[in-house]
Amino acid sequence: MSKIVPVVLCGGSGTRLWPRSRKHKPKPFLPLIGERTMFEATLGRCGAPEQFAPPVIVTGTAHLEHVEDQARDFPGATVIVEPEAKNTAAAIALAAERLPRDAVMLVCPSDHHIADERAFRAAAAAAAKLAAEDWLVSFGITPTAPETGYGYIKQGEPLPGGCRVERFVEKPDMTNAQRFLADGGYSWNGGIFAYRAGFFLDELARHRPALAEAVRHAVEQGREDGKRFHPDAAAFAQIVPESVDYAVMEETDRAAMVPASMGWSDIGSWAALRDATDRDHDGNSVRGRAELVGCSGVFVDTDGPRVSVIGLSDVAIVVDGDEVLVTTMEGAQKVGKLAGAARQ
Amino acid sequence: MSKIVPVVLCGGSGTRLWPRSRKHKPKPFLPLIGERTMFEATLGRCGAPEQFAPPVIVTGTAHLEHVEDQARDFPGATVIVEPEAKNTAAAIALAAERLPRDAVMLVCPSDHHIADERAFRAAAAAAAKLAAEDWLVSFGITPTAPETGYGYIKQGEPLPGGCRVERFVEKPDMTNAQRFLADGGYSWNGGIFAYRAGFFLDELARHRPALAEAVRHAVEQGREDGKRFHPDAAAFAQIVPESVDYAVMEETDRAAMVPASMGWSDIGSWAALRDATDRDHDGNSVRGRAELVGCSGVFVDTDGPRVSVIGLSDVAIVVDGDEVLVTTMEGAQKVGKLAGAARQ
Repeated sequence: MSKIVPVVLCGGSGTRLWPRSRKHKPKPFLPLIGERTMFEATLGRCGAPEQFAPPVIVTGTAHLEHVEDQARDFPGATVIVEPEAKNTAAAIALAAERLPRDAVMLVCPSDHHIADERAFRAAAAAAAKLAAEDWLVSFGITPTAPETGYGYIKQGEPLPGGCRVERFVEKPDMTNAQRFLADGGYSWNGGIFAYRAGFFLDELARHRPALAEAVRHAVEQGREDGKRFHPDAAAFAQIVPESVDYAVMEETDRAAMVPASMGWSDIGSWAALRDATDRDHDGNSVRGRAELVGCSGVFVDTDGPRVSVIGLSDVAIVVDGDEVLVTTMEGAQKVGKLAGAARQ
Repeated sequence: MSKIVPVVLCGGSGTRLWPRSRKHKPKPFLPLIGERTMFEATLGRCGAPEQFAPPVIVTGTAHLEHVEDQARDFPGATVIVEPEAKNTAAAIALAAERLPRDAVMLVCPSDHHIADERAFRAAAAAAAKLAAEDWLVSFGITPTAPETGYGYIKQGEPLPGGCRVERFVEKPDMTNAQRFLADGGYSWNGGIFAYRAGFFLDELARHRPALAEAVRHAVEQGREDGKRFHPDAAAFAQIVPESVDYAVMEETDRAAMVPASMGWSDIGSWAALRDATDRDHDGNSVRGRAELVGCSGVFVDTDGPRVSVIGLSDVAIVVDGDEVLVTTMEGAQKVGKLAGAARQ
């Protein structure tokens, strides 16, 4: 079997990780866990040359500089520069149009954390096999908590290395999330997909013909510029933005999933980041200069000033330049709505 | 009756208000409440010329610059510069030795907050009358809560405008503090005293003869320098430091108190400061740029960076240069023990 082509989608904003994540340097380009940025870690885990071809990165002009700077260690990497953001269906279609029809692509968001890279690579191998047989394959993340912030996948009939998708389930309420967790027949939809490029385009053309046609024109009339490819802006402008979940995955009758238990997190909030980091025996997690007294479950991330904390539990404190954020873990969901995050 | 001489003791450190209060600029010299510093406010409330003579300030060399800078608007003010800190008995004795024996002095710490200056001046007038009759007079602050952080005064037989002190009570536990509050016969010892200078020195000489003698020599052999007076360092060095409470007030049989209900606080912690400031309808108090969402009883004081807070209750957040403090109100008592506060 030929090598998997990583397709890394790099369009995020991530206001929920404000003030560290800012418009000019959003979440994928920050070293939130460990020394590497989220984007570098994404490239790294798709970097094993025996399994993966060089990556195709899809991004916009706004972050092109960060992308090219941080992809420097991956000399085969190429970049598709979207003239404007049109959501994931179009972004993935651009990459698919640029690949041989029989290439198997692995679509990866650039701002997720995966603790267990071995498990990731095993799931990628299983997904690629199914994709080569014209399944549209989701990674089905094994739930570890009754999360209400993720979409779920109801598992269907078994397939080699995975199963059919019985249906996709929108973000549930807490009662349903608890039921899904207890049931065991549900997985989180992690937004990681394996497709055979040609089959993906066929299915897109069947369910969203206008979108598929616009992407085809944008690529036909696009231009190469070294390692960059610029789709035609006028053709791309015609596209009605839609997620690949709605445009393809929920429409097709060839949806499959592979189970993945790999320490995954979308790091969707400071609470999620705390949970994904190494913590001391009191559950505290510190990056930068800090002193904690009588604290538990406290997360501190400071870019310079010392942070001294007394007597708090389950609070995140982030210092970034001229902004200081202090929030409960529950309140962390609301960070994106702060005046600072909105006007960043 | 002649005018009262304010004797302002300016030796505090105030590590419990770190990181705003620092060694090089401690609590008295900070505008913690309103626009004036605590020291300026102290001078201001003893500034009515019909009631008060110009103040005598007792301080050390470390803070002399702050003292003279902030006392600029009080042209009659003089300063006694202690060669070293020897606690309050010696500081007050220095001032007493420099005054006519019949002068009535009002000893005021320089870092307390008094919201009701009218009530303060009324209490000062009542205390001065008793002091002129050779009572050693404490301000007995009317308790408003079962405070365990203050010493208490048990009220004795009535006197004109006040009463005798039956006894001084050390900082109580919570059970006793609640009992004192319910009883009504106890007041907080606010550390504000009125004395006739000569009688104070007589009582000091009776109960602490060596201390009184050393102060007398230090003043006799001291030197004037404009508005400054420098006691003799060698003589002053002999003194065993002791508070006026132990050295005189608990020894004398002429201890009296005047009741004072004047919105007093020693601002002994960030919790006390929050309680003394104006608060919004959620009990929050903000100085500097801040956004609070779903917070109550939160205190924010920032010298620059914006502070955004979500979902917290009864927490103090202080940003000062390269230090950020986040503490529960309970934890505020421990601020002085932080590494930052100790090494400031």
